[in-house]
This record gives sequence, structure tokens and C-alpha cells, in this order.
Amino acid sequence: MVERIQRVKGTRDLLPEDMVKRRYVFERIREVFEAYGFKEILTPTFEYTKLFELRSGEEVVEQLYAFEDKGGRNLSLRPDLTSSVARLFVNSFQTAPKPIKWYYIGNMFRYEEPQSGRLREFWQAGVELIGSPNIEADAEVIALLIESYLSTGLKEFTVNIGDRILLDEFAKMLGVKDDIGLMRLIDKKDKMEKEEFIKALQDFGLSEGGIKKVFDLIELKGKPNDVLPKAYELFTSEIAKEELKKIEELFELLKAYGVENYALIDFGIARGFDYYTSIVFEAIAPNELGIGSIGGGGRYDNLIEVFGGKPTPATGFAIGIERLIPILENKGILPKFKVGSDVFIAYVGKDVEIKKKAIEITQMLRREGIKAEYDLQGRKLRKALDYANSIGAKVAIILGKRDLADGKATIRNMESGEQKQVLIERIVEEAKEILG
Amino acid sequence: MVERIQRVKGTRDLLPEDMVKRRYVFERIREVFEAYGFKEILTPTFEYTKLFELRSGEEVVEQLYAFEDKGGRNLSLRPDLTSSVARLFVNSFQTAPKPIKWYYIGNMFRYEEPQSGRLREFWQAGVELIGSPNIEADAEVIALLIESYLSTGLKEFTVNIGDRILLDEFAKMLGVKDDIGLMRLIDKKDKMEKEEFIKALQDFGLSEGGIKKVFDLIELKGKPNDVLPKAYELFTSEIAKEELKKIEELFELLKAYGVENYALIDFGIARGFDYYTSIVFEAIAPNELGIGSIGGGGRYDNLIEVFGGKPTPATGFAIGIERLIPILENKGILPKFKVGSDVFIAYVGKDVEIKKKAIEITQMLRREGIKAEYDLQGRKLRKALDYANSIGAKVAIILGKRDLADGKATIRNMESGEQKQVLIERIVEEAKEILG
Repeated sequence: MVERIQRVKGTRDLLPEDMVKRRYVFERIREVFEAYGFKEILTPTFEYTKLFELRSGEEVVEQLYAFEDKGGRNLSLRPDLTSSVARLFVNSFQTAPKPIKWYYIGNMFRYEEPQSGRLREFWQAGVELIGSPNIEADAEVIALLIESYLSTGLKEFTVNIGDRILLDEFAKMLGVKDDIGLMRLIDKKDKMEKEEFIKALQDFGLSEGGIKKVFDLIELKGKPNDVLPKAYELFTSEIAKEELKKIEELFELLKAYGVENYALIDFGIARGFDYYTSIVFEAIAPNELGIGSIGGGGRYDNLIEVFGGKPTPATGFAIGIERLIPILENKGILPKFKVGSDVFIAYVGKDVEIKKKAIEITQMLRREGIKAEYDLQGRKLRKALDYANSIGAKVAIILGKRDLADGKATIRNMESGEQKQVLIERIVEEAKEILG
Repeated sequence: MVERIQRVKGTRDLLPEDMVKRRYVFERIREVFEAYGFKEILTPTFEYTKLFELRSGEEVVEQLYAFEDKGGRNLSLRPDLTSSVARLFVNSFQTAPKPIKWYYIGNMFRYEEPQSGRLREFWQAGVELIGSPNIEADAEVIALLIESYLSTGLKEFTVNIGDRILLDEFAKMLGVKDDIGLMRLIDKKDKMEKEEFIKALQDFGLSEGGIKKVFDLIELKGKPNDVLPKAYELFTSEIAKEELKKIEELFELLKAYGVENYALIDFGIARGFDYYTSIVFEAIAPNELGIGSIGGGGRYDNLIEVFGGKPTPATGFAIGIERLIPILENKGILPKFKVGSDVFIAYVGKDVEIKKKAIEITQMLRREGIKAEYDLQGRKLRKALDYANSIGAKVAIILGKRDLADGKATIRNMESGEQKQVLIERIVEEAKEILG
């Protein structure tokens, strides 16, 4: 026997029941993205590996699906879309009116250990807002992220907002030179036990006083009214105070958007990537599935320059679809979907004329926007109706030679089992009635 | 200066104007697929290379984007979706009720020389109908292919139908052992001058009589009423005659579907892949862009077995989106689309209260499903209105401090230039009126 080939580890097949949920979620999110004036783009699945190396944090580069094509080019499957979007901007949109508001829905690839909500091929819906240095732009994308989740029916979630500048100032305050190292460490706090975390901070070279300050920092978490007064105490530099003022304004603006209840401060978050420059955020929805962040983003004012463009401020986010959908399912938030045909047409006999009649009736239904199919297998009636049942058809239409001679057919409500003879010219109406 | 990284040869960036056209075309096609009772699936972007080697024609294997992942697996980006669908069927759906009707919309990858309508990453919308050996199934997918094109507004096209069994019988008749070689040659006839083609047939070892028969064969092209009588003369074997009868029935059924005007016989087509087993077809739309086939497919009754499944008949097709859309554009068939915000809200001053008012009004509009944005740049009025113009906004709303105190704002029709003061509570209605 031939060996059966399996799908590759960390990937999945999306079946009709999966696809219909995904489409629903994507369409809800898309509507919100478009209401906010974002326009859809899509970049190629692979890019020169160098593009991702120029930008991404170490971790992402290690996880690249990198390969050489037949022309000797060093390519990688995209691990996210922000790099590609920045490349596109630098090459063709530097002189376009600002801000540029782009969104995408696409698949990404990272060679990571598969786990709950983490696949090697995964999908994201995201936006990039390029050209505005103002806190208004941060507010716009954070409000959009919140409204995106709300559009899917999700209610229990928060978007937690941190700030890279504050973390830099914090590192300075502690006399730490390897600020990125410290950030990475702080970013991983939730993945460690407290003792483990303290040990890691000691190994990093922090004094007892420094470690205490780290704990003060990561406790700066919650509503702005509670957190900001403490933050003004912890941070003493002018730069930090200015940044805190911006964050105050950010929350003022989020109130105007009507989404402030979903936003929290969490000054202990830095996000995985090194390229964020000030406001960063991640979305968390409490769940029993072991799924962490369901999306996030932040401001990246240096990236365009790194890619050879004029310095241009930018911010954006991505929503992780493989993380969001299981939570929506688990909480019973998604509507029930029906896939496949609603009407099934069976016929008795093998005559080509009766098949043609079956096709004509099928086509009448389809032209009215009804999902319909007729028996392509030429089965006996009993088996044909079993199939109709198995695909969840709500209506069966049965054609017999004698009925047809009278211009009639039998229509059957598959749920109730009721059936009656009707004129073929009335069959679309009758089917519609049962479908409701 | 940093070197700017370009996108990879043979790939393209899809801009908002491209995406909106693609979505339109995909959605039209999707509606028809679903009306026919097909259900959407999606398989991973990469598979074990072996999967494609087991199945595909030589040409496709040579064109694979093959690579080794960090775990030492030999993987390839999918060159089409049929192999993956067959793999999915063999692994999980062999005992499911038949037929299985699946469709997909996805991207594929082939390392080919880029040219008009041919990219290294390209998109296809396709269906696979698994489990029916009957000509009804061939008719169903051919009718669906035709209706898919019609749904996009395309009117000038034909689906040309050939038959692998007839070509096999033809090879036997000529005493040719390398039937696949002969088929490949015949398939390339349109890419050669007549003399060149004759030379190739001579080199292949055909006698003068054989070459004459090849020309008889490739002239079997046109309406079934014209072609079939000649075909019954050319083909003398019982197998061939049975196959011709099936094709007669196929056209009978296509009449019942109401699509027979778009279907032609062309017994000279074999399609690139070796895995087709009887009916094959390709769609051609006359165009000035040098674009050949815009889609095609056929029956592949052996493939499931090759992949280690129980022998299971199947048929399907794929539509090439990068081939279809340029033709639709070139013929002016696609509707005009507007992307981005319809309403732009500008404000005068830097006060946070006026920004908040701008956000509130923007949100009022968005909640009514109107694409709206406010000025994230904090520009002077003149520049803000220039931006509104550049994004094609039809309405501008202008907030000034004094007006706001009276609960009013200025609304401007960007096309006519007319503007007036209105109460803010009336602003959504007023905007809707201008948007029409």
C-alpha cells in the first residue's frame, strides 16, 4: 500500500465549519477596519530574508522559514506583515498624503513549538497607520482594536497599554545599559514564578533596590486614575513625565471613542519586538484554554528609517485569529452556522430527461440564491435522502416520472418529515416557505 | 544610506484598488460556488514535497518552491490545491457521504518565468467534487465554471472540452507507446508555428499518415453538432465510441443547466498535468493582453489512489485570478470602486476638548456604517481639506470653537463645494444626504 502523507506539523486543515466561522470573524473585523477609513492591502507571502533581519527581534529571525529559491535568492516566508508594509511604504508611498491607513488579513509563518493558539502557519488581521506622530494616532488604533473585538461579540477583554520610553527611562534610572535585555526580562515576568523572576533579575545584575523598583514598575497596572499618580511618583525624569502626560491624554481620547472601559495601563509590558518606540499594547481575554495575548501592537517610529525611508512615525496592531476564535467558540459567542446545500433534489430512474428536469429545478433554486444540489450519484431514493440528511438539507424535492408528466414534484420538509405534491412552477416558492 | 529592499521577482503588492477588485470578483465567484452547494476549505500553504512529487506533472515538480525546514523536513509551497485536498480526503474523509463538494480561494506558488498573467505567487478559486464517477459530476463542475465567469460580468469566453481517454485511444490508433509524450506535444500546438509543429511530430516518430490524423484530431473543435459526427468517423474503437456518447450526454446536461452556449469541444487539449483521466476542459476569453487560459480542470479518478486512498473518482477546476481580473479590467466590465473614508472631520485649534468632539462625531458616523476619519495630524484647516480631497472624501465636517459652543458644525459637499452650518445632532443625517 502507498504510504499516506500527513500534513506538516504545526499546520492545520481548515474544514467548512472552520472556514465559515473565520469568514464571519474576518468580515466583522473588516467592517470595523473600513468604517475607520482603513484600506486593504496584501503583500507577497515571501520576501528577501534581509528584510526581516533588518527589523525583527532575535526571536523572530530564529523562527523564520528561510530558504533559497531556484534563482539563488535568500527568501523567507513572512513572520508578520509589518515589515512588508514598511517596505511597500518606503518603495512607493513616501510622498503620498499622510496618514496612510492600511489593513490586511493574511497568513504568517513562524517555526515555533506548536501549542494552544500557536501554529506554525497562522492568520492575522491587522492595521498600520503611517505618518502621524500624534497620540491621536495611538488612540485611533487602540480604539479600533477594541471595537474590532467588540464586533465579534467578545465582551470580556482588556487592552493593556505600556510604554517603551518609560521602560527606557526606567532602565536609565536603574543604571542598566542593556535596556533591551531588561525589557525582555520584564516582558517574560508572567511566564515565571516570582522566585525565578527575582533570580533572573539578580543574574541580570540588579541590586536589591533595583529589584524592588522592578516590582514597583510591574505593579503599575490598572485604571489610569489608580496607576498614573503612582507612576508620577516612580518616574522622576522630565522625559518620563512628558510621556505620562501623553498617556493621560490618550485615555481622555479613548473616552471620546467610548471604549475607555476596555483599556488599562500596564507599564510592565514591552512586547516581543525591539522595534517599538513608545506606546505598546496587548489584548488579553480571560480564558480556560491557556491562550495568552489575542492581539497587540504599538508605535514604531524608527522602522521606516531602518528600511531606508525618510524618518516616518507609524503605529499599528495585529489580531491573532487562531487565538481569538477558540475563545469565541469556548464562550459560545459565535452564531450557529449552516454549511452546504439547503435543498436537495432526488429523482427516480436513470433517464436523461429526468436528470435534465432535476438540473432545471436545481438551477431555478440556485438563481434565487438558494443553496441547492441534485443527486450526482444516481442513487436509489432511500440512499439519496440519506445523503440529503447527512448534508443537513432542510428541503428535499423528489422527481418521479409519473408526477413529472403532470408537471408536479414532491417536496419534503426534512425536519418535520411532512411532504406534499406541488406544481413544479410553484416549487421555488414552496421551498422558500420551508426555508423560512 | 540604507539599501532599500525590493519585493521578490514574480511577486506583487496588492494595493487598495487591487484588493477591492479582487474581493468583488472572489465574492461573486464564492456566491455561485455556494449556490451549487460547495463548502469552503483551506489547507496549509506548505506540504511535504513528496505529496506534489507523487502526483504532479514533471513541469510542476521542477517549478516547486522546495525547502528544508529547521526540523529537516522537505517541504514545498503548494503549486496548486488539488494535491492538498486529495491528501485531506484520504486522511479524514474517505468514509464521509459522497459526493464531497469543496471549494477554496487561495494562493499558489510556481517558480516560472513571470509574464502577462503569470506570477510566481498567484491566486486561484477552485472546486473539487469527490466521489461521483458520473458524467453528471463533470457537467456540474463545467456548468459551475461557466456560471462563475458569468457572475463576474464576463460574457465573451468559452469552456473548451477535451478528453484524455480519447487521446489515449488516439495514441493507440497511431501505434504510439509514449502517449503522455504525444499528449504534451499536442497540448503545445498553439504555442508553435505549423511547420514547427509538424517537425516536432516527425521527430516524435509519426509517419505522414499519423501526422495527418493529428491534424484531423486538432480540428475536432467547435459545437458538438459539428464536431461529434466527424469524431465518430475518426475514432473507431469501442472505448472511444462510448466516451463520445458520454460527451453527447454531457452537452445534453449542459443544456439543462442553460450554459451550453459557452461550451465547445476541443479534442486537441490535454492540459499540463498527467493526472487527468477523462474529461478535461479549459476556459479561454479572447483578449489583447496575451493571456491564455483563464481557468480549467478535469476528471482525476486515479489521484486519490496514488495518495494511498481507496480508488475514488473526482473532478474539479481552478480559476486563475491574475488572468481573469486583467481581462475584466481591460474590457471595462468591473464596477467603479471607491476605497477609503467618505467623510473627513477637520477641526480648528489644538485643544483636547475639540479633538474629543471630532472623535465623537467621527464615531457617530462610523456607528451608522459610514466610513469616516478625523484629522490625526492636527493640521491647519486648508491642509486638512487637501487631505480630505486626496483620499476622495465626499463630505468634510469642520469644527470651530465658536460653532461648537452653539452646538453646531460646518458640513461641506466636497464635490460641489457647497457648505452650511448644521446642528451637531443633525450631522449624521446631513452627511447621509450628501452621500446619497
